[in-house]
Amino acid sequence: MPRAAVMTAPNQPIEVQHLPNAPMEAGSILLETIFSEVCGTDVHLHHGQLAGVPYPIIPGHVSVGRVLETGNIVNDIEGVKIQRGDVVTFLDVHETCNNCWYCLVAKASTRCPHRKVYGITYSAREGLLGGWSEQIYLKPGVKVIRLPDSVPPERLIAAGCGLPTAIHAIERAQIELGDIVAVQGSGPVGLNIAILAQLSGAGGVIVLGDPPNRLQAAKEFGADEIISVGETTSRERVEKIRALTNGRGADVTIEATGVPGAVREGMQMTRDAGRYVVVGQYTDAGEVSINPHLDLNKKHLEIRGSWGSDYSHFYKMVKVLAKHGARVGWEKMITREYTLDEMNEALAAVARGEMVKAIVNPKR
Amino acid sequence: MPRAAVMTAPNQPIEVQHLPNAPMEAGSILLETIFSEVCGTDVHLHHGQLAGVPYPIIPGHVSVGRVLETGNIVNDIEGVKIQRGDVVTFLDVHETCNNCWYCLVAKASTRCPHRKVYGITYSAREGLLGGWSEQIYLKPGVKVIRLPDSVPPERLIAAGCGLPTAIHAIERAQIELGDIVAVQGSGPVGLNIAILAQLSGAGGVIVLGDPPNRLQAAKEFGADEIISVGETTSRERVEKIRALTNGRGADVTIEATGVPGAVREGMQMTRDAGRYVVVGQYTDAGEVSINPHLDLNKKHLEIRGSWGSDYSHFYKMVKVLAKHGARVGWEKMITREYTLDEMNEALAAVARGEMVKAIVNPKR
Amino acid sequence: MPRAAVMTAPNQPIEVQHLPNAPMEAGSILLETIFSEVCGTDVHLHHGQLAGVPYPIIPGHVSVGRVLETGNIVNDIEGVKIQRGDVVTFLDVHETCNNCWYCLVAKASTRCPHRKVYGITYSAREGLLGGWSEQIYLKPGVKVIRLPDSVPPERLIAAGCGLPTAIHAIERAQIELGDIVAVQGSGPVGLNIAILAQLSGAGGVIVLGDPPNRLQAAKEFGADEIISVGETTSRERVEKIRALTNGRGADVTIEATGVPGAVREGMQMTRDAGRYVVVGQYTDAGEVSINPHLDLNKKHLEIRGSWGSDYSHFYKMVKVLAKHGARVGWEKMITREYTLDEMNEALAAVARGEMVKAIVNPKR
Amino acid sequence: MPRAAVMTAPNQPIEVQHLPNAPMEAGSILLETIFSEVCGTDVHLHHGQLAGVPYPIIPGHVSVGRVLETGNIVNDIEGVKIQRGDVVTFLDVHETCNNCWYCLVAKASTRCPHRKVYGITYSAREGLLGGWSEQIYLKPGVKVIRLPDSVPPERLIAAGCGLPTAIHAIERAQIELGDIVAVQGSGPVGLNIAILAQLSGAGGVIVLGDPPNRLQAAKEFGADEIISVGETTSRERVEKIRALTNGRGADVTIEATGVPGAVREGMQMTRDAGRYVVVGQYTDAGEVSINPHLDLNKKHLEIRGSWGSDYSHFYKMVKVLAKHGARVGWEKMITREYTLDEMNEALAAVARGEMVKAIVNPKR
Repeated sequence: MPRAAVMTAPNQPIEVQHLPNAPMEAGSILLETIFSEVCGTDVHLHHGQLAGVPYPIIPGHVSVGRVLETGNIVNDIEGVKIQRGDVVTFLDVHETCNNCWYCLVAKASTRCPHRKVYGITYSAREGLLGGWSEQIYLKPGVKVIRLPDSVPPERLIAAGCGLPTAIHAIERAQIELGDIVAVQGSGPVGLNIAILAQLSGAGGVIVLGDPPNRLQAAKEFGADEIISVGETTSRERVEKIRALTNGRGADVTIEATGVPGAVREGMQMTRDAGRYVVVGQYTDAGEVSINPHLDLNKKHLEIRGSWGSDYSHFYKMVKVLAKHGARVGWEKMITREYTLDEMNEALAAVARGEMVKAIVNPKR
Repeated sequence: MPRAAVMTAPNQPIEVQHLPNAPMEAGSILLETIFSEVCGTDVHLHHGQLAGVPYPIIPGHVSVGRVLETGNIVNDIEGVKIQRGDVVTFLDVHETCNNCWYCLVAKASTRCPHRKVYGITYSAREGLLGGWSEQIYLKPGVKVIRLPDSVPPERLIAAGCGLPTAIHAIERAQIELGDIVAVQGSGPVGLNIAILAQLSGAGGVIVLGDPPNRLQAAKEFGADEIISVGETTSRERVEKIRALTNGRGADVTIEATGVPGAVREGMQMTRDAGRYVVVGQYTDAGEVSINPHLDLNKKHLEIRGSWGSDYSHFYKMVKVLAKHGARVGWEKMITREYTLDEMNEALAAVARGEMVKAIVNPKR
Repeated sequence: MPRAAVMTAPNQPIEVQHLPNAPMEAGSILLETIFSEVCGTDVHLHHGQLAGVPYPIIPGHVSVGRVLETGNIVNDIEGVKIQRGDVVTFLDVHETCNNCWYCLVAKASTRCPHRKVYGITYSAREGLLGGWSEQIYLKPGVKVIRLPDSVPPERLIAAGCGLPTAIHAIERAQIELGDIVAVQGSGPVGLNIAILAQLSGAGGVIVLGDPPNRLQAAKEFGADEIISVGETTSRERVEKIRALTNGRGADVTIEATGVPGAVREGMQMTRDAGRYVVVGQYTDAGEVSINPHLDLNKKHLEIRGSWGSDYSHFYKMVKVLAKHGARVGWEKMITREYTLDEMNEALAAVARGEMVKAIVNPKR
Repeated sequence: MPRAAVMTAPNQPIEVQHLPNAPMEAGSILLETIFSEVCGTDVHLHHGQLAGVPYPIIPGHVSVGRVLETGNIVNDIEGVKIQRGDVVTFLDVHETCNNCWYCLVAKASTRCPHRKVYGITYSAREGLLGGWSEQIYLKPGVKVIRLPDSVPPERLIAAGCGLPTAIHAIERAQIELGDIVAVQGSGPVGLNIAILAQLSGAGGVIVLGDPPNRLQAAKEFGADEIISVGETTSRERVEKIRALTNGRGADVTIEATGVPGAVREGMQMTRDAGRYVVVGQYTDAGEVSINPHLDLNKKHLEIRGSWGSDYSHFYKMVKVLAKHGARVGWEKMITREYTLDEMNEALAAVARGEMVKAIVNPKR
């Protein structure tokens, strides 16, 4: 009976429980967890800020593990057979239906109402469907990718869910060669966006965030400029961005903060006819007042929300890590590795913003 | 000395004055005005709601006239010589510089800081540079189009500045075949957007506006559904749009109201992964509160401000009128034709929203 | 045992055979065929010009029928239950896998290698999987749409496979308001493209084709100009298009001929920086010589192949027919209705280009 | 009287002549040439392969120089005053009119018929309007950029006209994170495309070219794979690309060869639903046969011609050099520096493909 760290209800302590072994179905895979992660979403889950979560749950959406067993033959999308002992990661998003209006007509599968997410929308009563567990059960149809040798598990988990989220945001941002990119937020999503903006040809990357260790990380991961939000007012930040861009503002701004007030500020720090991508407003944290004339219409601004990620982002995540991993060194983002017994502590540290990236090692 | 209706200062009565004759320069054109228009912008100008306006001004940005005289040879962009007696219209936007960062790098000429607009940013002291006048002086470089025989002057002026503004907004909206389009606003811009949405392949067009005569006009000009904003709450309107779209919201929403509160409502009435174009927030009318999680990020929404118009929109205006004019009958939008001596009355009527379209005939 | 017209092998006469009744599986639907169609692809199939076709086959990909029976509960994508007696059409493309690189990474499902098409890639030995049959068996997962009352079966079948193919091509063409659109080909796909170009805001539509009855149909369905390819040389056609467009060429050209030589001509009749969509080269009919400097690079041209169609095009087909059907009157395209016993004759007539649209009524 | 290397007529030896001093007009600039370049276009000019060239000409389109004198005040587009002694480069493309249909409606200024290009479309009789000269006269309105200190003149000229051409091609290519990019051609344009593809987030870059020294340069400038066109057949190259891409072909292919036959090969080595940019077919070098079914339509391919460059590409060139110049080291491309007296030799060496990049130093 594998051990798992279970979030029984909002605002309750995480409990380590022994859960039943998973019954293998045809097409399923059982993983021995190597690493999972603690991300801001887990804090939101712990605070009960997401609607419709079937507590108790096993948190941990992006994870990496070793294949213990497969139900008959399972292939990846390139037709490669997954075998016992393979080190794999899997797309936490599951059951996008390919049969509804959003999947088939709008072609916006991240808005498919049938979508399920490991570690978030599955109950612990339904099985080992989250990463804070010694074992993870991959239901038939869950999409796996075998890690290439050049991508060690700690690099993958350091990138975590932040990297595919950032890949989607970058795709929406359509950065052109030489664009000055402002990134609001220095958490894992913000840092990954900063990295990817540089890899995508940005002429300069400015990260606005806090606390100092995260800003320092931003600098190490390639930000040309960093701005502390704790030491500046909103007006000062907008002016600073303008000062860095000949008075115009950033060509592209990408929000990754979760703070509603950041949205107006982001509109203001983007140049006229620029692009603004909002990816960090993952939970309902309230409202923000904007001036539609000054902040939007007169600026001829383009604003794009970016929700979730799909298989393509997950696929590209592994490609990006394989190509740029050694040079970028994502694993340097890992501030601390926690055991299953330390998850309360881990959540508290993430909530306080102390971590660049916190990961979970269920075997320790 | 031609007569002109001059706006001497904000909130002062319009005065009819005799102004000096225009001195002809090489490349200039002198027009005898056939029609000009009274649009919502003129009301804003009269209320002092635009920054940097060099009062006294001669209002009237889009106009149609007969060529009295040209300074040497003047050609249109197709190389056709403009001749005495030709009936022409001209692009009110002038002096987009093609020499600044916005013109050359961002390729967003409607944000060029050197841009001038007839009837708005020229002072009456600088010449006959507005349409509420017996004569209009077209400075060298002002772009003219000779009206084809199939476009009578009253049809052109009925379309007025609303049509090129709408063409720009429709371009930003990228309507696809079958899209359900919600149009917020039933003034001239909103009506033109409704017409163009139908011409662009919309699967259905819903106009939200007021008062009854404008909504009636929306119906006549092709709206499939109309919704009175006076008789509904914001929540009811959003629910009504959802009820008309299988619960999802409009594929594309286009705002043409000038009311800040419309912006949040527009975001809410657009479907997830849809597109929202904001074109009506032409002056600073205050703020609106939005919820960035619910209204933007989770919806994976795309929002596009649309500012001003350029030569291409003006060119397409004449093409659209030539092709669809007889069937659509834009001239039916004209509620009343005013003389230069009646402009105070005209402004008041437009401000009260009584007009579908008010035009000026300086010769009457 | 339902009767079906079977294509036993390339270049062999079509035979009417009695085939076994379909066994109902959960999620399947049995239709009584109301209409199917004869299209150019069926001629290609008969001539053995498509690779990998599992003869014997029952041709007929787009069809409309009445539900005789369903295997348990079957819903359409909006969640509406399909019931006995409903008049439906169905997406002939089936088993797009949503599990391969093309479906998930390239998001180009019409290039999914697992894709099957009714009437083309299913053998008659596998069941009633084509429209030239008294009954059609819809396998579980085949996507159906119930026809709205406003879309009579003969209108749907007159639009046939040409309309979704045209919708895809028009989507690739991204027509903007006022664009002059040249359509190469006056067969069903070309005619539908001409109709849709007009519905999408084209400033003018020029159809190049033959024979006279099809060009006449083009005129009736909205072409502003028609050009007979039989009475002109390639150079004359290009010059004619230029003469109609101020010397520049069409803003957008769409090819729907199947003749390789049309491709160079199409490039030449498109203006510099214009767009050229190639949709009609459905089978390998040989090569064409182009001049990459003059025809492509110097023109700064954009060329887009358009392959097949997906659910969204099929969905929009029904929406377009519901909105514009009565006015456009697609059913006027039907030149003749054939019985199952007359399919050899039908194929010959289609091959000779005599038909605008030939349809099949298996019950006659 | 400055010395210049003059191309008097096609296929005639270059002659060094003393030309009249330039008369300064208001807004003009006189440069002392620091470097100019010899590019493939100069070979085409020498072979008489471009139409409408007003021989005698002073070749050399992209150049860098020191300001000797300005006619009154001249500012760059950011408003910075150009002063005597400044080291500047200038946009060789001049007189794009901003007043024709292509400039204003199509917004395709590189197809403006009024466009002039230094070193190509100006006669030596009109003045010092090319870079193979001790002095260059910048007519009023020619757009200059002052080189930042971080961009030494030899780095700028090593990038030469290849870099802005490549920036335009890359813009057309819209590379997404992780795309495998095949580059046909290892001349200066191909090498710059390879560099920019890597900077734009390509997952891998494959350069196909010759001779060995250029392929070696491709490797040094970041190609992941190189393929010699001399040692392989077309079929082998296509198969090699497929072998490197899981059998699919490149996501994006960019042609920079000038050889018509490369175009079909490029179509074949691009994956289904991929993108193919053709930038190298700068002169009429004949035709190529393609199969529109197999190479285009069935592949659902997108092909984009890319002609010339505009101010934005030139502006971004300097930004790219400022940001990445030290690391990339463009100056390593320079194979040899020629004097004005050696230009016949220079042209011959470039024609033989021996050079990676040949530059001109008129002062030596």
